[in-house]
Amino acid sequence: MGLRVGVVGGGQLARMMIAPAVELGIDLRVLAEEEGMAARLAATSVGDYRDAATVLAFARDVDVVTFDHEHVPQSVLHALVDAGVAVHPGPDALQYAQDKLAMRARLEELGMPQPDWAAAASAAELQEFLDAHGGRAVVKTPRGGYDGKGVRVVSAATEADDWFAALAEDARGGALLVEELVDFGRELAQQVARRPNGDVVAWPVVETVQRDGVCAEVLAPAPGAGERLTAVAARLGAEIASGLGVTGALAVELFETRDERLLVNELAMRPHNSGHWTQDGAVTSQFEQHLRAVLDLPLGDPSPRAPWSVMVNILGGPVDGTLEERLPAALAAHPDAKVHTYGKAPRPGRKVGHVTVSGGDLDDVAYDARAAASFFLG
Amino acid sequence: MGLRVGVVGGGQLARMMIAPAVELGIDLRVLAEEEGMAARLAATSVGDYRDAATVLAFARDVDVVTFDHEHVPQSVLHALVDAGVAVHPGPDALQYAQDKLAMRARLEELGMPQPDWAAAASAAELQEFLDAHGGRAVVKTPRGGYDGKGVRVVSAATEADDWFAALAEDARGGALLVEELVDFGRELAQQVARRPNGDVVAWPVVETVQRDGVCAEVLAPAPGAGERLTAVAARLGAEIASGLGVTGALAVELFETRDERLLVNELAMRPHNSGHWTQDGAVTSQFEQHLRAVLDLPLGDPSPRAPWSVMVNILGGPVDGTLEERLPAALAAHPDAKVHTYGKAPRPGRKVGHVTVSGGDLDDVAYDARAAASFFLG
Repeated sequence: MGLRVGVVGGGQLARMMIAPAVELGIDLRVLAEEEGMAARLAATSVGDYRDAATVLAFARDVDVVTFDHEHVPQSVLHALVDAGVAVHPGPDALQYAQDKLAMRARLEELGMPQPDWAAAASAAELQEFLDAHGGRAVVKTPRGGYDGKGVRVVSAATEADDWFAALAEDARGGALLVEELVDFGRELAQQVARRPNGDVVAWPVVETVQRDGVCAEVLAPAPGAGERLTAVAARLGAEIASGLGVTGALAVELFETRDERLLVNELAMRPHNSGHWTQDGAVTSQFEQHLRAVLDLPLGDPSPRAPWSVMVNILGGPVDGTLEERLPAALAAHPDAKVHTYGKAPRPGRKVGHVTVSGGDLDDVAYDARAAASFFLG
Repeated sequence: MGLRVGVVGGGQLARMMIAPAVELGIDLRVLAEEEGMAARLAATSVGDYRDAATVLAFARDVDVVTFDHEHVPQSVLHALVDAGVAVHPGPDALQYAQDKLAMRARLEELGMPQPDWAAAASAAELQEFLDAHGGRAVVKTPRGGYDGKGVRVVSAATEADDWFAALAEDARGGALLVEELVDFGRELAQQVARRPNGDVVAWPVVETVQRDGVCAEVLAPAPGAGERLTAVAARLGAEIASGLGVTGALAVELFETRDERLLVNELAMRPHNSGHWTQDGAVTSQFEQHLRAVLDLPLGDPSPRAPWSVMVNILGGPVDGTLEERLPAALAAHPDAKVHTYGKAPRPGRKVGHVTVSGGDLDDVAYDARAAASFFLG
């Protein structure tokens, strides 16, 4: 019998698990939202991940269920667990990726460094937080946000009126999350993977560059990160993974403040854009590691293969034609660029691929990666 | 429209094209010999590659046809070409991989260094060659041999009587190939890839270690290979690729004689066992490069990612159970080992997977790779 991993969700994260699955002899099966998705080669079922019967039927033929995204409802996750299915990460961990208020509260219990925050159930409570934090703050919808969606910087409580109105209509009710506006120097991301047996490994902390709330590029390792920062970030990642009971890959998005503190911004309990560089730049990629972790196999060496790797997202893609049509020019100009496409139609702002370059000189590597990615735009 | 590559043959070489195809956005379609083969994930057809109608039907939906092996008959290859299908490598190149006598004759025309050789149509001709070469020689069946099959060291012409008898019954008739027994110090392999437009790139020459005529391990680059040897081997590979009109990957197996000459032993016009180290140890793997070459895309950087990579074949596999059952122990002991399995049932002598380790110290890397591979044996 082989090792069978079922992935709920057919996006690019599931797609990028295919390569390591084939090489390690893992039978990867994907429950895709529709036909023709990024992970179509491994899609064995098409159906609605919010429907317990659909997901249970899919899970019958695999050894473990894992995820391309964090949107599978708790009721479905618990139905899987109740049916005896191994689910990694499990519902108890995923709740913290699904509800940012729960995440903030749990990180506080764990003593993790994070921005000042509060649950604001009303405009009055939001205004109170604003008044106490210099009149500006970040407001987030606790559920359903990603890539900058559900995040808003406000300087008056009225600017969140529509979200409060939506909350009032939501049967689950609740509050908005409000956070201090951190004066950060840059954003970092710490990736770790954790097995069910508790073992954790950490990749070196990376710098992430965001544009319009979306990850544009990643520099690995984070330039200027000394031993202390690297160790502190790795420990943070491991403590959060253990504290939240995460199994599989975990990305901890961090603010590095101008006074050199690290504060937890967001969490992702799956392979994450900040770790795409590991496909080409590390001994063990985040996709291989995630598969190993959810199967409770020993974790691989996360060491970088080169002093520097830079990953640049292809956002939107060509305004006409396909990414594949741009390959000849890009590959001709940049023989060292590793181009990854997601099999998705170009659309403004959509993540349709990425390029990674590794080497000994950060400036050269970053230049090459950006230049290669630019061939797929415009 | 995407880039569609059709691979005839469903073995591990086709399987290992899946990973780079997914990442580059290439639609890989495999014509497998039967259900459940190594490349089953990409298999879109099952059928007999010796049947022109089967292969023509398969080729209808792809942009280029390439191969997992070199056994597709010339008549089928020509039927494809006649139907306007792009075939890489083409029949004119493949004839030299299919017929070792034709290969020797063509390499002689090209002035390539090779062992003394002759076509022996009878035991008398073979004996004549033996008498002129110290009484021992290597006899090969020109067609159909691989992994040591169809190769025999003889010291009397009678030792090839069965092959002469078989030739007499073969409608194509012909002769055996007889070659001098080269007093080599070691065996090397030079891998190159060539586009239809004529561009060629070369990986560094590697050392291959054979046991019982089968590749056991590969050291990359070849230890002690200086600039001169590296350049001579790369030029040899490029000249043979161009001279034979090879498109796609070409492996040139070489003898390094004790007096430091290189002599061509065998050719393989496809990704080859001697190049498996490139999956983990080079910027561009042989599998990605082969796909790029047959699609006439610009070729990638063949530079090593580490000073040393050692690839060790898993020959035969476990005497009981599956490779996957051995993964936990192997991965626990060797977190830096890249394990590749072929999805094939263990069987004595069968290539069922390989392990590659890369790093800065050759002895350490070789030890780790051998130790990791040993977990899958016995």
